[in-house]
Amino acid sequence: MTIKKQAGRGIITREMRQVAEYEDVPAEFIADGIAEGTIVIPKNRKRSFPHIRGIGKGLRTKINANIGSSPYHMDGDEEIQKAHAAARHGADTIMDLSLGSEIISIRREILKESDVAVGTVPLYQTAFELSRQKRDITDMTIKDFLATVENQAEEGVDFVTIHAGVTTQALDALVSQGRVLDVVSRGGSFLISWIKKHGRQSPLYEYYDEILDILAEYDVTISLGDGMRPGAVADATDRAQITELVTLGELACRAWDKGVQVIIEGPGHVPLNMIEENIRLEKSLCNGAPFYVLGPLVTDCATGYDHIAGAIGGALAAYFGADFLCYVTPAEHLRLPTIDQVIEGVIASKIAAHAADLAKGMNYARARDLEMARARKDLDWHGQINLSLHSEKAQVIRDSSEIGKDNVCTMCGEFCAIKRLQDVL
Amino acid sequence: MTIKKQAGRGIITREMRQVAEYEDVPAEFIADGIAEGTIVIPKNRKRSFPHIRGIGKGLRTKINANIGSSPYHMDGDEEIQKAHAAARHGADTIMDLSLGSEIISIRREILKESDVAVGTVPLYQTAFELSRQKRDITDMTIKDFLATVENQAEEGVDFVTIHAGVTTQALDALVSQGRVLDVVSRGGSFLISWIKKHGRQSPLYEYYDEILDILAEYDVTISLGDGMRPGAVADATDRAQITELVTLGELACRAWDKGVQVIIEGPGHVPLNMIEENIRLEKSLCNGAPFYVLGPLVTDCATGYDHIAGAIGGALAAYFGADFLCYVTPAEHLRLPTIDQVIEGVIASKIAAHAADLAKGMNYARARDLEMARARKDLDWHGQINLSLHSEKAQVIRDSSEIGKDNVCTMCGEFCAIKRLQDVL
Repeated sequence: MTIKKQAGRGIITREMRQVAEYEDVPAEFIADGIAEGTIVIPKNRKRSFPHIRGIGKGLRTKINANIGSSPYHMDGDEEIQKAHAAARHGADTIMDLSLGSEIISIRREILKESDVAVGTVPLYQTAFELSRQKRDITDMTIKDFLATVENQAEEGVDFVTIHAGVTTQALDALVSQGRVLDVVSRGGSFLISWIKKHGRQSPLYEYYDEILDILAEYDVTISLGDGMRPGAVADATDRAQITELVTLGELACRAWDKGVQVIIEGPGHVPLNMIEENIRLEKSLCNGAPFYVLGPLVTDCATGYDHIAGAIGGALAAYFGADFLCYVTPAEHLRLPTIDQVIEGVIASKIAAHAADLAKGMNYARARDLEMARARKDLDWHGQINLSLHSEKAQVIRDSSEIGKDNVCTMCGEFCAIKRLQDVL
Repeated sequence: MTIKKQAGRGIITREMRQVAEYEDVPAEFIADGIAEGTIVIPKNRKRSFPHIRGIGKGLRTKINANIGSSPYHMDGDEEIQKAHAAARHGADTIMDLSLGSEIISIRREILKESDVAVGTVPLYQTAFELSRQKRDITDMTIKDFLATVENQAEEGVDFVTIHAGVTTQALDALVSQGRVLDVVSRGGSFLISWIKKHGRQSPLYEYYDEILDILAEYDVTISLGDGMRPGAVADATDRAQITELVTLGELACRAWDKGVQVIIEGPGHVPLNMIEENIRLEKSLCNGAPFYVLGPLVTDCATGYDHIAGAIGGALAAYFGADFLCYVTPAEHLRLPTIDQVIEGVIASKIAAHAADLAKGMNYARARDLEMARARKDLDWHGQINLSLHSEKAQVIRDSSEIGKDNVCTMCGEFCAIKRLQDVL
């Protein structure tokens, strides 16, 4: 039985207990959430890893780091280092988005080495394998695709992005309204070119039940991809995006019926004023399934600093109910990220998640900020560094300056407000 | 006549025309806003500088960069370089918060060298001069303070922070409610210790009219300081902060009566869920005077990354109506910032301001993002770099990777979604 089916029967599993302990909630709360579909625990039945996490309503906001090689930059060791660095700095899950000749070996290594749940996009492997045979993704048969899904599920992948919402209807909506920047999702672009070539419905939608059967067998969580996510704020919340989201709501129910846990993927580029409606709409159309947003980026113009644009959008999204933030690195729109850029992306996302949880009144976040405030009042620098979301970086910055006598810092020196009021109040 | 008085009589000045041109609005709109108090143009009548800017309702969100030496790190040349770097990267104003032996020479140099409005906190100079005489700020007489204000106004300072809202009433509120982190404003801590020592009302409140007379003479804009701003999210929106804000509303009206333009300073550390109410409260209590927020920081735990915590808070604050964002650098809470950290702070703040203006539907922001989206669709890398809020950084990141053939990037290589759809759609 899958985790979802067990939860439906009121069975509390070891994973549920582990998640409940981490979240400091009763295990029944986790089981109820999984049964309702508002919580998921991505974990393949064939894989074991220490940091099992729940994602969803009432839980801490989780963050994902995308790693993986590209055809123009292929270095397996570097990707493993990225996986370790991401998890060490606070990523709750890793997605391996590798493309290129070492796609299989890199995934296997990441599955072996990672302490956290690992996700993939099976369509990438199918595309790459066809490309190696000098064929195109538009030559894909459903057999090709199902074989990849089975292969990855068998290897232990915990959650997979399936772009089953990229349908002829969504494409019609895209074409009828028009967009400034069409489609920026790799998976979305593959399926659109497939649909255009064959003039019929996407095989991922047509054979959705067969996909679910494989996922149910290995207890792989489905992350319903947003192939129609806007890649520019001018395209946000448009006909194509919402048509796809309506379909994702339908597909979520069908997955639940087969005992498969569901995550819904969301945008993308969204201006600040549209974030709340995007979250509320997903919760409504998808019956409360956990919402996994990419950023969102609140402007198109922060190239080189998209982790900051993503932190702004992610904080607000999580505050309004997004459950799972996919990080964005400073390299977004420019290149495959380096290890350092992966770390910067994780920290930015972590700040967003923490700020949202604090605003939602979550105890763990309030306790940490309170402890930090007390460390500041006491001019306890060791405590301040330890409580920082990236202690090493905070320590490096402090150590780089002439550290003041009197236990203050070089910002105010002897004119430190905190020190003065320690004496006065 | 001050700018404010002229606006009240319907006179359109050269400064108003310049601001109207930059904002792409009628000059009458600027004059009306200044007359009502919802817009300011900080500019000392004795100073000329090229980038004259308006701050307030209906205008682009502006950003300020704080620079200046500290007693433990004193390097005049470095501060001038910071001033230049900040303005070059998009700061609309500079505040010189210098303390220490070169306070006067550094300010004079910044006033001479800067292309933008320059602000100061005269109380710092008073504190430093007393300290040089082995006396404390609690020994300050109103004569000492007025002499500093006059001295700085005469030198050409365009706006000054005056913490006249730190009163016995605000201190009573602070003590009666209690705080985790008391007071983190330097100016606030000076005045609280003064009030505690003398057991009577702050001289800055008692002699407020005399201060205004000097500011009116030189047409210096008053920025009413928030000495009671919370320094921890646990203290946000408390009795002391709001007591001070009520007073600032009263002081704003008194400044307007004397023809002095007014900015209101605000927090500080504010959780996401309290940002909207903080902005609405200021607009209501201070009759729509421009609101100048420091960050705000949405968590206490982002040490080393406070520019990101500040960008999250700043974007939301500006979206809800804050007019002027004071940047926060990655060095906040740790040290006086380096030049690079000043740049990182400016860019983060710029992203916040831009995202807010985009969400408010401002034409300049929408046009830039639209142009970026088109450059992305065309795989026009030169255009994308140029339209980035920090082009140099974007260029460095792109150049650091194996730049793809086919004009793509190393993220997806040949599997680029945009390239695929150029061919298909």
